[in-house]
Amino acid sequence: MKEIKTIVVNRSAYADNDEEAELLRAYLKDHGTFLVNLMSSPGAGKTTTLTALINLLKKDYRIGVMEADIDSDVDALSIAKNTGVKSIQIHTSGMCHLDAGMTKSGLDSINISDLDLVFLENVGNLVCPAEFDTGASMDMMILSIPEGDDKPLKYPLVFEKCDLVLINKIDAIDYFDFDMEKCKKTILMRNPNATIIEISAKTGKNINEVVNYFHNKLNSWRAN
Amino acid sequence: MKEIKTIVVNRSAYADNDEEAELLRAYLKDHGTFLVNLMSSPGAGKTTTLTALINLLKKDYRIGVMEADIDSDVDALSIAKNTGVKSIQIHTSGMCHLDAGMTKSGLDSINISDLDLVFLENVGNLVCPAEFDTGASMDMMILSIPEGDDKPLKYPLVFEKCDLVLINKIDAIDYFDFDMEKCKKTILMRNPNATIIEISAKTGKNINEVVNYFHNKLNSWRAN
Repeated sequence: MKEIKTIVVNRSAYADNDEEAELLRAYLKDHGTFLVNLMSSPGAGKTTTLTALINLLKKDYRIGVMEADIDSDVDALSIAKNTGVKSIQIHTSGMCHLDAGMTKSGLDSINISDLDLVFLENVGNLVCPAEFDTGASMDMMILSIPEGDDKPLKYPLVFEKCDLVLINKIDAIDYFDFDMEKCKKTILMRNPNATIIEISAKTGKNINEVVNYFHNKLNSWRAN
Repeated sequence: MKEIKTIVVNRSAYADNDEEAELLRAYLKDHGTFLVNLMSSPGAGKTTTLTALINLLKKDYRIGVMEADIDSDVDALSIAKNTGVKSIQIHTSGMCHLDAGMTKSGLDSINISDLDLVFLENVGNLVCPAEFDTGASMDMMILSIPEGDDKPLKYPLVFEKCDLVLINKIDAIDYFDFDMEKCKKTILMRNPNATIIEISAKTGKNINEVVNYFHNKLNSWRAN
């Protein structure tokens, strides 16, 4: 198994996170590195989804992963073992989210000079990560079936912010009272431009659709 | 359906939350009102569990519920409709947790003079709520099977802090890779004094054990 690099980051000294996030987005564009900020509740399947996705994307892109967590290293180890791509662990010093300064520290540590695509797995939390622009090129989130179809109503900001919403664990849909149409309608009411894809990271269902989404997204990002 | 009172709270002006929390605990003891702070991830089953529990406890105690949420009123409406007990909605003004001052505002609004037992449903989040003492008489949490058995490793503080940990959705355990013994071992490593009860709020399984836990807890609290 690869050795995992762990860095500890603290809240940025910059007062204006939004300004710093815009600078980071421009820096990433200059370097040709597309950064994806991935958010969800704890246990929605971020690491499993990233593993399935990266294994299909890695033949076309040089990929890196930054796993943000309060305390443990289990996700970065799992990603490194199961995908082989470069991955680091970011410890947030107890913080419940990442801001642009913390994200930049992570990027400096992973070294983006040889990377086309970097996934940032944010802290598992539907509230705080949505309030801070990390400077990523795009935001995505995962909602999982067992969490319930009312989450877009209760945690509106994260759904408003994300270009891509994956609805995961659809293999378990018969087990839970989850109204897919109602859920999608609420998401689109919050965010009419959201792309919503139903997936099962466990069985691999529709992961190819997510792969196509990223091909299109990177092509259009590079062209602009 | 009852009309739901909604209050909006802001971060307390008091610098020292811990001090304010201790004062609140003493105030509750003077009034003979036991306050339970309930934490979990979004979608772990806080409202469903509270509903099942309150319907078994309400013959013995005068119960109130404070539902904290960033934006919606759906939980307070659901509790009022399905249990008939007094319930209010607390809007946190975007905050990801409650502190002792915000909790006191809620208690003033619900009026505890005729209440023996109040449940505070904190914002769905495993990170921030654990960092702030609300002043409650006890802390409890719900972990649900679909979230995974590694959560005590990844969100240690909330597990360290809670007297009672309910493991919910055990009706769905065959559907997920969840190692119950490993999970319990990790929780007890973090918090050797935790009481852990496996439940299904959906089917009602073991809710009577939780009822017994509260009878014992209130008896010993009143005796001290």
